[in-house]
Amino acid sequence: MFRKFLPQEVNFFELFEKQAGYAVDAAQCFKEVTARGNIDEASLNKIRLIEHQGDDAAHTIIDQLNKSFITPFDREDIFSLAKELDDVIDMINTIVSRMSVYKLSGVNKNLIEFSLVIYDSTRAVAQAVKCLRNIKNAKAVNEYCVEINRLENVGDSMRDAVLAELFDTEKDPIAVIKWKEVYQDAETVLDICEDVAHVVGNILVKQA
Amino acid sequence: MFRKFLPQEVNFFELFEKQAGYAVDAAQCFKEVTARGNIDEASLNKIRLIEHQGDDAAHTIIDQLNKSFITPFDREDIFSLAKELDDVIDMINTIVSRMSVYKLSGVNKNLIEFSLVIYDSTRAVAQAVKCLRNIKNAKAVNEYCVEINRLENVGDSMRDAVLAELFDTEKDPIAVIKWKEVYQDAETVLDICEDVAHVVGNILVKQA
Amino acid sequence: MFRKFLPQEVNFFELFEKQAGYAVDAAQCFKEVTARGNIDEASLNKIRLIEHQGDDAAHTIIDQLNKSFITPFDREDIFSLAKELDDVIDMINTIVSRMSVYKLSGVNKNLIEFSLVIYDSTRAVAQAVKCLRNIKNAKAVNEYCVEINRLENVGDSMRDAVLAELFDTEKDPIAVIKWKEVYQDAETVLDICEDVAHVVGNILVKQA
Repeated sequence: MFRKFLPQEVNFFELFEKQAGYAVDAAQCFKEVTARGNIDEASLNKIRLIEHQGDDAAHTIIDQLNKSFITPFDREDIFSLAKELDDVIDMINTIVSRMSVYKLSGVNKNLIEFSLVIYDSTRAVAQAVKCLRNIKNAKAVNEYCVEINRLENVGDSMRDAVLAELFDTEKDPIAVIKWKEVYQDAETVLDICEDVAHVVGNILVKQA
Repeated sequence: MFRKFLPQEVNFFELFEKQAGYAVDAAQCFKEVTARGNIDEASLNKIRLIEHQGDDAAHTIIDQLNKSFITPFDREDIFSLAKELDDVIDMINTIVSRMSVYKLSGVNKNLIEFSLVIYDSTRAVAQAVKCLRNIKNAKAVNEYCVEINRLENVGDSMRDAVLAELFDTEKDPIAVIKWKEVYQDAETVLDICEDVAHVVGNILVKQA
Repeated sequence: MFRKFLPQEVNFFELFEKQAGYAVDAAQCFKEVTARGNIDEASLNKIRLIEHQGDDAAHTIIDQLNKSFITPFDREDIFSLAKELDDVIDMINTIVSRMSVYKLSGVNKNLIEFSLVIYDSTRAVAQAVKCLRNIKNAKAVNEYCVEINRLENVGDSMRDAVLAELFDTEKDPIAVIKWKEVYQDAETVLDICEDVAHVVGNILVKQA
């Protein structure tokens, strides 16, 4: 009887790892796009596919949650974790999609830097999520969370510096409108990664 | 003894139907405003009245929730449903109010299209909410949710196309600032309708 | 045995009062900045310090919440209250930081007015939070919440008037971009204060 519930628990960890993996994939795709300074149909299709896969993973988690009596950690934390991971993927997809709609092309060193920090943050998120399987990993999880917080602070400073530069150097208001939004979105990705870290931190504290 | 609690349950359904009805009213008002291409004092008063009625309905639901021991479905779903329906109405009110503040007038075919999709989506939301009364309606509810998701995708594509067109054709940066915000808000209404569909979907899954 | 849990309860009230106090500090700092029409390094350091202190208070509350079995009011209300108070402080910090990044200087009567309304609202929030200690204060709490709602409406009208004026008089699109965002952020602070009032209201209703 007890065994019947156990696979359920295993599922959640697997699903979260899958979802966090899609966040890394999305960040990887964003990194490639900024390095190339050009968004072609192939990159658009790729990020859209990742976004769909992430969506499916999130829905599966929520569905399982709604059907499960026993969960490996608090229901609201499962819900929040699935939602925040989905938001990370969505926001990266939004940026790439916007760059295409706004016809922003050309290699932009600021955006490249953002994409690298975002990639590092999603990697730390994926590692933290992977460690959730075992309470013995508490210390490691905590270190990943500290790293995600650090990267969010890095992103804050970058955004401030980059926006100040934009307003100082870009005289075309239409270009200011476009780039300002993309830079602010990039920083928002790091904010959401930090939200993930908070949820993961809460899960740890409760199990300690 | 049992009967004492039953009217409570009936109340929630009625209140949600009322609230969803105000969302349709708001969408209807928005549709009229865009068709006329002009916001007069009468339409402003109308949308404000609807927004107040929606607010009252939301507060009544939350108050009842706080006072009730027995609820027809999970407390957090009641809270989310009331909140998301309120957000739909608020966002439509915000758009109409912004168009007035920004002095945006003239018939705009893009905004007319958005208003029609928004109207269809709020209608589907109202139908889905109405079906919640009876678990036998699960299939119908599901179809409405699929439709709401479809309309959100339609809205995504519309927003991308409309923003691309705006940046290609509108050379006045101030006009770009205003219309960009209104188009993005219009798409956000459809996002929130999709959030409502998710809550409704969760309620169904749990009762299945 | 019972006594062991009681100090925990006292803690939450103290922590919330501390957190609400930081919100008032942030509003006070914003008021000084707008009165002077200039953001120097000292004010930036001050608001950052307040933001860090607020962050620490919020984290302490969430940590305590995760470790506590008994709480003075519903867990989700404790979580929401900590989160919303944190958002108030964050948003004020964001505005001051943005004014610095955007190099917005000069005394602006509209922003001064906003800062006064924001200050009044955070003060009412702090009073309402202080009254939470004793259910006998229900009437006083309610009056503070009504006042916070009133100030949010005042803010709505101010924002509409101020944005209409901005679009009518400011012909530099870059200046429009900057000030529009700051004014909208200022109004958002009042929205979040209203969210705090809603949480406080829910707590009262449940205890009645």
